Amino acid sequence: MGETPVIAVVTAAEESWPPGLQPLESEARLLLCNDRDSLQRHLPEADILMVADFRTDLLEDVWPGEHRLRWIHATSAGVDALMIPPIRDSNIPVTNARGVFDRPIAEFVLGQILNFAKDFQNSFRYQQQHEWRHRDTERIEGKQVLVVGAGSIGRQIARLLRAAGLKVDGIARSARDSDPDFGRVHASGSLLRQLPEADYVVIAAPLTDDTRGLFGPEAFDAMREDARLINIGRGPIVQTDALVAALKAGRIAGAALDVFEQEPLPANHPLWDQPNVIISAHMAGDVVGWRKTLTEQFIENFRRWKSGGKLHNVVDKARGYVPPA
Amino acid sequence: MGETPVIAVVTAAEESWPPGLQPLESEARLLLCNDRDSLQRHLPEADILMVADFRTDLLEDVWPGEHRLRWIHATSAGVDALMIPPIRDSNIPVTNARGVFDRPIAEFVLGQILNFAKDFQNSFRYQQQHEWRHRDTERIEGKQVLVVGAGSIGRQIARLLRAAGLKVDGIARSARDSDPDFGRVHASGSLLRQLPEADYVVIAAPLTDDTRGLFGPEAFDAMREDARLINIGRGPIVQTDALVAALKAGRIAGAALDVFEQEPLPANHPLWDQPNVIISAHMAGDVVGWRKTLTEQFIENFRRWKSGGKLHNVVDKARGYVPPA
Repeated sequence: MGETPVIAVVTAAEESWPPGLQPLESEARLLLCNDRDSLQRHLPEADILMVADFRTDLLEDVWPGEHRLRWIHATSAGVDALMIPPIRDSNIPVTNARGVFDRPIAEFVLGQILNFAKDFQNSFRYQQQHEWRHRDTERIEGKQVLVVGAGSIGRQIARLLRAAGLKVDGIARSARDSDPDFGRVHASGSLLRQLPEADYVVIAAPLTDDTRGLFGPEAFDAMREDARLINIGRGPIVQTDALVAALKAGRIAGAALDVFEQEPLPANHPLWDQPNVIISAHMAGDVVGWRKTLTEQFIENFRRWKSGGKLHNVVDKARGYVPPA
Repeated sequence: MGETPVIAVVTAAEESWPPGLQPLESEARLLLCNDRDSLQRHLPEADILMVADFRTDLLEDVWPGEHRLRWIHATSAGVDALMIPPIRDSNIPVTNARGVFDRPIAEFVLGQILNFAKDFQNSFRYQQQHEWRHRDTERIEGKQVLVVGAGSIGRQIARLLRAAGLKVDGIARSARDSDPDFGRVHASGSLLRQLPEADYVVIAAPLTDDTRGLFGPEAFDAMREDARLINIGRGPIVQTDALVAALKAGRIAGAALDVFEQEPLPANHPLWDQPNVIISAHMAGDVVGWRKTLTEQFIENFRRWKSGGKLHNVVDKARGYVPPA
């Protein structure tokens, strides 16, 4: 102790510092890693890694033989990019941005449900054509939602949707008889049995070995033809080709997708023009000021760490997410 | 009594019977009035008028010198088209569809707020161009809403928006210190003082002499530059030219409009292409099955009337709407 800790800050290629780090300048030495070279150079001298690029695949490539890392923090909810063997199999604690995105994402999900129910996309299409076209729309009240993933994001989604009059069940590792946020929580093994009950299926799970490819042909066959899928979790939880096939065949009624197997979604991908598909650019949780909020959360945890306190939001690396308290 | 009552059913030009009237066929004689001639012919023999065309301007033209009308029902929330002198100045009771549209319209308003906050229209625009474009969006939590009109629709809007985490004040005829649905209710005379407080201004008022043209240059000057207007009430409450000018000058940030001074909105109207304007075809309250629900509500009231009971949802013709209980 007493020595000034070194923090390597990993951002996307050519990005500058995340906003809000100034308060740390007197408490730590900050090293910007925004390309392969800088990461390779700085990683061996870092005590702490702050990973602000949730897609990074550089870490595994440049992982040093010797390091002095004592803590890794991801300024994202998903830590899938960090679950590489040298980190997963180490005893370096990994923390994440649990909480920051919960409410914005819940609002986004409610918005997409209303987007479908009130047919806003077609209203906008008719508006572009200066066409006055009355349609009957749908209620959201009383509709059944199945949220896959009962972590902090899934719970916030459940709370907001229930407040808005929808019925919400959850899928988690294990079933629970009573739950403060969900109507019922079913075990992940019963996913295919629960899917036919849902008007809306929301993927709010982390990307792990258990969830990768979870939504394939079987899941889309189990969903109702009038059901919609909303994915604000991670792209690879959905088998994209199976989703496109299910949409084309009318086996499900629509999909609102904020995350994709490949991001950015390639310009020639069939999803862009698929009717009843709503696409956004991995932004569901990103409300004005989000980057600064993420830095503030890191600084709070840094001060806990520095004073020998207990880190918040520590990921269970065997599971790949922060387990419930 | 004992005689079979005659019900003239007024629909829009060339429209057929509203759905769901079959149960009345044994209890009443039904006459379809779907053009000027049939209305003129049937009006003098009708005991009851069921007006399913909320835009009708035929009634005043063909009003008979002698009639036997004992009740007029509008299958709409707004009864402005019925407030013609021979009806307003008579003692024929007028009832409306109070209640049926409340929850669907509240959902629609919440949807439009999320539409703005989450920038869905631009997401759809980028999707059409196959363009991956991340943007920061807005929270709805904690935003301030001013609902102009504290009738059953305005109250349902307040309840749903508050459940979703927004703060909601109302504008009514008279101020109230405590209110079960609104944060605070201000008197209509304080509209211009309340407008600067609001992130979203929702018009849910009936069209009356007091509300016609209420939103003109002064109101738009009073609103904040980052505020959005949502009109699900009646088009003529807004001075359209003043609205277009305010939008063009950036004096307000946007408008979601479901109702217009002229409906259908003419194909060459500047509103269609105005940025930050969301247009829909007077459909905010029309969820699947709405026409049948309206008929069922009429039949319930008809049976009350026939058995000598008290009609529900009787309009105060001096005010132009159903007053609070």
